[in-house]
Amino acid sequence: MSADHASRGPDEHGLDNRRPDHAARRGALRGLLVENEVDALLVTDRVNIRYLTGFTGSNAALLVHSWDMREVEERSVIGTDGRYRSQIADQVPDLCAEISKAPARRILELAGEWKLGRVGYESHVVTVDQHRGFVDQRTGLDFVATPGLVEQLRTVKDAYEIERLRLACAAGDAGLAALLERGALRPGRTERQVARDLEWAMFEHGAEAISFETIVAAGANSAVPHHRPTDAVLVAGDFVKLDFGAVVGGYHSDMTRTLVLGPPAQWQREVYALVAESQRAGCKALRPGAKTADVDAAARSVIEAAGHGALFVHGLGHGVGLQIHEAPGIAKSGTGTLLTGVAVTVEPGVYFPGRGGVRIEDTLVVREGGPELLTHTDKDLIVVE
Amino acid sequence: MSADHASRGPDEHGLDNRRPDHAARRGALRGLLVENEVDALLVTDRVNIRYLTGFTGSNAALLVHSWDMREVEERSVIGTDGRYRSQIADQVPDLCAEISKAPARRILELAGEWKLGRVGYESHVVTVDQHRGFVDQRTGLDFVATPGLVEQLRTVKDAYEIERLRLACAAGDAGLAALLERGALRPGRTERQVARDLEWAMFEHGAEAISFETIVAAGANSAVPHHRPTDAVLVAGDFVKLDFGAVVGGYHSDMTRTLVLGPPAQWQREVYALVAESQRAGCKALRPGAKTADVDAAARSVIEAAGHGALFVHGLGHGVGLQIHEAPGIAKSGTGTLLTGVAVTVEPGVYFPGRGGVRIEDTLVVREGGPELLTHTDKDLIVVE
Repeated sequence: MSADHASRGPDEHGLDNRRPDHAARRGALRGLLVENEVDALLVTDRVNIRYLTGFTGSNAALLVHSWDMREVEERSVIGTDGRYRSQIADQVPDLCAEISKAPARRILELAGEWKLGRVGYESHVVTVDQHRGFVDQRTGLDFVATPGLVEQLRTVKDAYEIERLRLACAAGDAGLAALLERGALRPGRTERQVARDLEWAMFEHGAEAISFETIVAAGANSAVPHHRPTDAVLVAGDFVKLDFGAVVGGYHSDMTRTLVLGPPAQWQREVYALVAESQRAGCKALRPGAKTADVDAAARSVIEAAGHGALFVHGLGHGVGLQIHEAPGIAKSGTGTLLTGVAVTVEPGVYFPGRGGVRIEDTLVVREGGPELLTHTDKDLIVVE
Repeated sequence: MSADHASRGPDEHGLDNRRPDHAARRGALRGLLVENEVDALLVTDRVNIRYLTGFTGSNAALLVHSWDMREVEERSVIGTDGRYRSQIADQVPDLCAEISKAPARRILELAGEWKLGRVGYESHVVTVDQHRGFVDQRTGLDFVATPGLVEQLRTVKDAYEIERLRLACAAGDAGLAALLERGALRPGRTERQVARDLEWAMFEHGAEAISFETIVAAGANSAVPHHRPTDAVLVAGDFVKLDFGAVVGGYHSDMTRTLVLGPPAQWQREVYALVAESQRAGCKALRPGAKTADVDAAARSVIEAAGHGALFVHGLGHGVGLQIHEAPGIAKSGTGTLLTGVAVTVEPGVYFPGRGGVRIEDTLVVREGGPELLTHTDKDLIVVE
């Protein structure tokens, strides 16, 4: 390790986590471009542009060359419109910036002037109309559909990203703890009030935004996997399912806990214990090299063995990072394989329609020797007296 | 007007504003489908599906038939996945719902069985990869690019929508008033603190969410049109630009005010007066039948006449509704014409890089006899002592 590297502060894995290394990410992308036999990639997805450059504006296009040459980085170019002139200079000091009303059009014009041949584009993001616009521009470029290349890179988090995920998960943990300490979750309050208080508590503990619309689902509503908070009032004996997260540095946390208001009934204890066992099995199955379908199966088989397989109506989990849902999906139909550094959720659930349901969810990072747990709130059934 | 209609409570324009009439919206869409010579439209855009059906889940597809027949409505079909089984039954009781892991695929399968011929799709939203999937499904359907049809309908707001916009704008007005009353905007506080307090105040006044990341930009930062709040501290003499909004019933408000901390300097008074004059001219130009480019010109010419045209670096405004930015755009290059009931922002700005800037923005509805102003906060320069 160079002295310079050490001075930037390695984490416990010996990796720098203080600033994102956008140039390294673009370097990794170049490797994929060579594999995909394109001369450059036109990146138009906003989150992918943030990942590769740090730019957070709402309108941009980026061209990354594939050639493995020293001068390549100088020819990567990012475009945005006039609203972001000073922002792009601040956020992306290391790339040439083009200001134009139609950034993608301008970037393709340049690529045409540079006589690039095959230019990959994000066919999973680019609309049919945008693609027609590229072709109609008559730049002489040959457009090649290259879906998901940056998303593939994004599955494996670097030290900077994992540190942000840790902080985001910590804001979620601290937010829930504060909510419970204050007694803000109790019979008589509404789902909406609890959701608002939980979000506020996350902001007090370092969240810069919430990850997604907070789910607070009480009583029979807890049987709705993606319930939106209503004015429904919490009642003694209810399950209360909380699914929520915080954003720190652009990175999203995701956690679900299901609590019970007062002494749990026998059926509540049983379904909770079942989901908890399934969740442990899912976490245990997170290993470098594991197939995502096998991870799903490890958790699902526990619920199926109890005869409730039909009540676990969604996949086991998903990647999490700059977006709340990103690759890889962990589901029955998954085809991927986990790598060290992939960040995912594990979130089995069992839902009895009209009665109530339980979901337990953590965010974890796949590691040699067992996953690193980022969401630390207790997973024993929390009884709110 | 039928007794039934009257009993639902007309607003001051004699229109019911208590519940959305999704069937009427689908009826209006059918007219456009006939014009576009398609037998049906596959709707996959999430916001468009919400507009046409009320469904708010994250994964859905909708097929609307074009035929003008009594039984047509019975053949409109919406699809979603298993997570939303009970939600779709609640939110869309009037349409047949198909539950499937791949809703669009399932809907097209049905369309193929029904031997529909030409099926429109949202080519401005559907990605190149999705379109390839439609074609590869070999349903025998003929896919026709029909971009922006639902967005075209959405530009003209019905009574239900305008009432929600009024409530959203009122939450924004009340939030800002509360922020100022509490003295939460003052030298020594940071942009981020002020943004958080303003958002919280909007929640206290009826917001169910914020419209977009609140902009608080102090001092030189006010010259950055889309500045994100930082830990920069507010200082006496600063311009403070606040651009923010609330969501009520899914509808977004949008307002910008620029305040000054303490007695304004001469240059601050002058630039503020200029932008205010430009904003009045823009609002005055909002008339049914006006070309959007002419509305932009009405406001821009005021700033150009003062020699600052180059510092007004963005369009004048945009449509607002279920999305914070929607059609029509009001810009130099705009090609549209305003209709009665269109909701738009008018937001000229002048930005002196490194020094400071002013933007003043209202949300309004185009009406015969002059626009209806929805954002009521005073537009005289607010001096925070």
